[in-house]
Amino acid sequence: MPSWPLNQWYVAAYSREITDGLLGRTICGEPLVFYRTSDGEVVALADRCVHRRYPLSLSHLKDDQIICGYHGFTYDRTGGCVAAPGQKRIPRTARVPAFEVREVDSLVWVWIGEQDRVDDALLPRAPWLDSPDYTTVRGMEPLQARYGLLVDNLMDLSHETYLHGGYIGTPEVAETPITTEVDEDARVVYVSRHMADAACPPFYARSTGIEGRITRWQDIEYHPPCLYLLHSRIAPVGVEPPADGPDDRAFHVEVVYAITPETEHSTHDFWMVARDFALEDQEVSDFLAENNRTVVLQDVVALDVLEQVVEGEKENYQELSINIDTGGLAARRLLAAMVKDGEEQPAPVTAR
Amino acid sequence: MPSWPLNQWYVAAYSREITDGLLGRTICGEPLVFYRTSDGEVVALADRCVHRRYPLSLSHLKDDQIICGYHGFTYDRTGGCVAAPGQKRIPRTARVPAFEVREVDSLVWVWIGEQDRVDDALLPRAPWLDSPDYTTVRGMEPLQARYGLLVDNLMDLSHETYLHGGYIGTPEVAETPITTEVDEDARVVYVSRHMADAACPPFYARSTGIEGRITRWQDIEYHPPCLYLLHSRIAPVGVEPPADGPDDRAFHVEVVYAITPETEHSTHDFWMVARDFALEDQEVSDFLAENNRTVVLQDVVALDVLEQVVEGEKENYQELSINIDTGGLAARRLLAAMVKDGEEQPAPVTAR
Amino acid sequence: MPSWPLNQWYVAAYSREITDGLLGRTICGEPLVFYRTSDGEVVALADRCVHRRYPLSLSHLKDDQIICGYHGFTYDRTGGCVAAPGQKRIPRTARVPAFEVREVDSLVWVWIGEQDRVDDALLPRAPWLDSPDYTTVRGMEPLQARYGLLVDNLMDLSHETYLHGGYIGTPEVAETPITTEVDEDARVVYVSRHMADAACPPFYARSTGIEGRITRWQDIEYHPPCLYLLHSRIAPVGVEPPADGPDDRAFHVEVVYAITPETEHSTHDFWMVARDFALEDQEVSDFLAENNRTVVLQDVVALDVLEQVVEGEKENYQELSINIDTGGLAARRLLAAMVKDGEEQPAPVTAR
Repeated sequence: MPSWPLNQWYVAAYSREITDGLLGRTICGEPLVFYRTSDGEVVALADRCVHRRYPLSLSHLKDDQIICGYHGFTYDRTGGCVAAPGQKRIPRTARVPAFEVREVDSLVWVWIGEQDRVDDALLPRAPWLDSPDYTTVRGMEPLQARYGLLVDNLMDLSHETYLHGGYIGTPEVAETPITTEVDEDARVVYVSRHMADAACPPFYARSTGIEGRITRWQDIEYHPPCLYLLHSRIAPVGVEPPADGPDDRAFHVEVVYAITPETEHSTHDFWMVARDFALEDQEVSDFLAENNRTVVLQDVVALDVLEQVVEGEKENYQELSINIDTGGLAARRLLAAMVKDGEEQPAPVTAR
Repeated sequence: MPSWPLNQWYVAAYSREITDGLLGRTICGEPLVFYRTSDGEVVALADRCVHRRYPLSLSHLKDDQIICGYHGFTYDRTGGCVAAPGQKRIPRTARVPAFEVREVDSLVWVWIGEQDRVDDALLPRAPWLDSPDYTTVRGMEPLQARYGLLVDNLMDLSHETYLHGGYIGTPEVAETPITTEVDEDARVVYVSRHMADAACPPFYARSTGIEGRITRWQDIEYHPPCLYLLHSRIAPVGVEPPADGPDDRAFHVEVVYAITPETEHSTHDFWMVARDFALEDQEVSDFLAENNRTVVLQDVVALDVLEQVVEGEKENYQELSINIDTGGLAARRLLAAMVKDGEEQPAPVTAR
Repeated sequence: MPSWPLNQWYVAAYSREITDGLLGRTICGEPLVFYRTSDGEVVALADRCVHRRYPLSLSHLKDDQIICGYHGFTYDRTGGCVAAPGQKRIPRTARVPAFEVREVDSLVWVWIGEQDRVDDALLPRAPWLDSPDYTTVRGMEPLQARYGLLVDNLMDLSHETYLHGGYIGTPEVAETPITTEVDEDARVVYVSRHMADAACPPFYARSTGIEGRITRWQDIEYHPPCLYLLHSRIAPVGVEPPADGPDDRAFHVEVVYAITPETEHSTHDFWMVARDFALEDQEVSDFLAENNRTVVLQDVVALDVLEQVVEGEKENYQELSINIDTGGLAARRLLAAMVKDGEEQPAPVTAR
């Protein structure tokens, strides 16, 4: 059984990645091919011709249909075969699985699980990503590590102090205790760290222009398995958040990750940074994109190493957890329950 | 058990490759070393010193004997050890297996199977390759895919239209139905496709000078496991083949492949193109060599991908076959029967 | 079970490699991190943070303590954790295993085995390496081959003639018979080859200045598993070794190898060449370092190939041994007995 929950939505791509070309991407172990039809619909099909397995993503798109690059089997947007070489009759079973997709918040989500359970799971939202009140920079880095290592990483931001010092980490992050809450019904993990008086790391100093020390809120909201939201609020020391009313003296950054398993040992690490200030400032956009990509790559290097460590170690190796890990442990517990839910179901049927 | 038939001849090399140097090449999972003696005989020995396993192909050839590059064990053309370091007495068992070879039609064939069955299998012929009436260009590309994928590829030429469009493929190839015959006794598969009125692909247009549309015959004759012959005849539309007598108004190209398993996941893809026209024209030779190598490499890229697909897919994945696959399916059936024949025999004894 | 003896000392590094930086190196399958404290002690700890497994060798050393580069867990020289992020209380079990080390003869030895058997095995000595009467050059090459292949290689120097011809090999090495003795109690294998009248290879000709033929003694003393000593004595033909008294008309070279398994398929190949002549001559040092490194790399290339051969070959492949192999076979026998000794013990406990 796979190590990820089956009947869940996963981010497969950014909207802007799906064009009138063919995009091949493996999601949760399933090789898929994506394209956008001339009327704007996103199509997701199994990336394997029914005839001799040739990847459709290496083939040709014409009139919203894929023509296999090996022998010319032709598929429409539903996965149905509409032409085969050397004969007029199309075999009745000539069909590649089609997968449900949802395009929302500038993200393309795909459903890999059982077709009749597609409405069981809510699609978590990240509305900042295509809101006119925010400007977003983004990227995706391939990670040669299991998705759980990225979940661990993001649920415990005390690592910012050590792995991302000089970028987004300062001593206060590791020093400040966290509070953790779990909404068992909604399956959400919340981790909060409020630093009343902290150094301002370059990531925020250069983008906001704040010169002195800051008050810094890190409020994590993780919707397992795929969507991770970090509500980040910073303000000069002394600027308290209002009990109600506009909070317009603080700077808000919504850091979003989509954590999508590619295989058991690799992950698509989608990262986005949305801000509610300097909306039109390209220099700030460029700086945040560059700075955050550097931070993500620091994680990638570390997690790729950890994957090798985990792969090579003896069975039953026990790690040690402390207070900072309560969020990560809660996430693992929810994920394990969701994986178990998936196992109790029959095998997926993907034709629609 | 290996996936290839055991007691069969396989092409190991072109004659011109076997010189007074040492050539190491793995044939059907057996590492072999080849060389040509001063009297012109081709020698094939196991590529592993009996002492400490050092590859003889990385060693030295002197006076028609191989001196091991590690400790100096010396072998004659029969595989017998004739010298050992530090002592005069040669152990009676110091001998590397020698393999039967046949050199014919400019090909070096080797027998990996049981020694006492060396006459069970006929050597299929490709006489054009060293005939004065033909000029041949050739090459060999290493394929990181199982040999069966190359057999599939070559038995169904409808892929020319899609994978080799602009080289040897035109729409008519995929559109025109095939006829398939199997000679069960001789173990030969025939697949024919006759295109009465077809576009002339660059491969033939530039080599023959024909400017209009052509009649094109593709007559495949596959002698499993190793030898694949494509008798290709093209002529301007209207030039019918004679009932008898000379067919000298048509152009004949004999495309030959030798499909030799290297390991379970790699194959030696020997390709040859013999023609009966423009025999002395170096420009035509250069064009056909370059054009056909490009075509072969297009297959190599596709089949290397397919090997990864097959390796990674779930057990019991079912592919879909249609009319164009009758030749390929017949080849698979003969190969499976030949593999089964080999399994019923005891383990190979290779000393001669 | 590992293929190397468990309760034995292994060379982990040269003294000069252990500084106030962090050195990560895997010894007998155990990832270790090494450093030298400000008071000169060599520390060896498991290279894996107890928290989330991050390699300590990729972390920071400060005040003789390692601060984990991921979340800041801090360890002292005993492996005890002295600081953890976000809390004052240090978990009682927060401790990485520390390993016994001995620094002697310019070598850093480590004990991977059971803690309470650390005195069972004597540390073999190579006093030339830091003696003022000798000058030593040295290096270490990573070998992608099991350690046993290097033991085989070094125990049978007849390979010098073939693999190292033009460097240290001459025909006489392979031609001259050896004598082998085994001290079963002390677990030492002795192999001797005395060449009364031999060509002088460049390795000795250029370093000593001898121009004619030489008398050459090769006296191997192997202390399995790790330490290999080659007492090499050369002198112009006619200069006999004295029955007693100073042997100052001969040139003495002590060639030392430390053979340390890294994994089941890779080895640290430490090589040292100590000489009792031209002590201050940098040109001779440079020449010997360069020449010997070339020789070691010739072995590395050959043994890396042999590892692939052994990995790929059928089970129960039998090699053929002759007189030259008596030393190597004795070494294998002692090693097998030592591995068996280790297996009879309970699992290692490494905290000190």
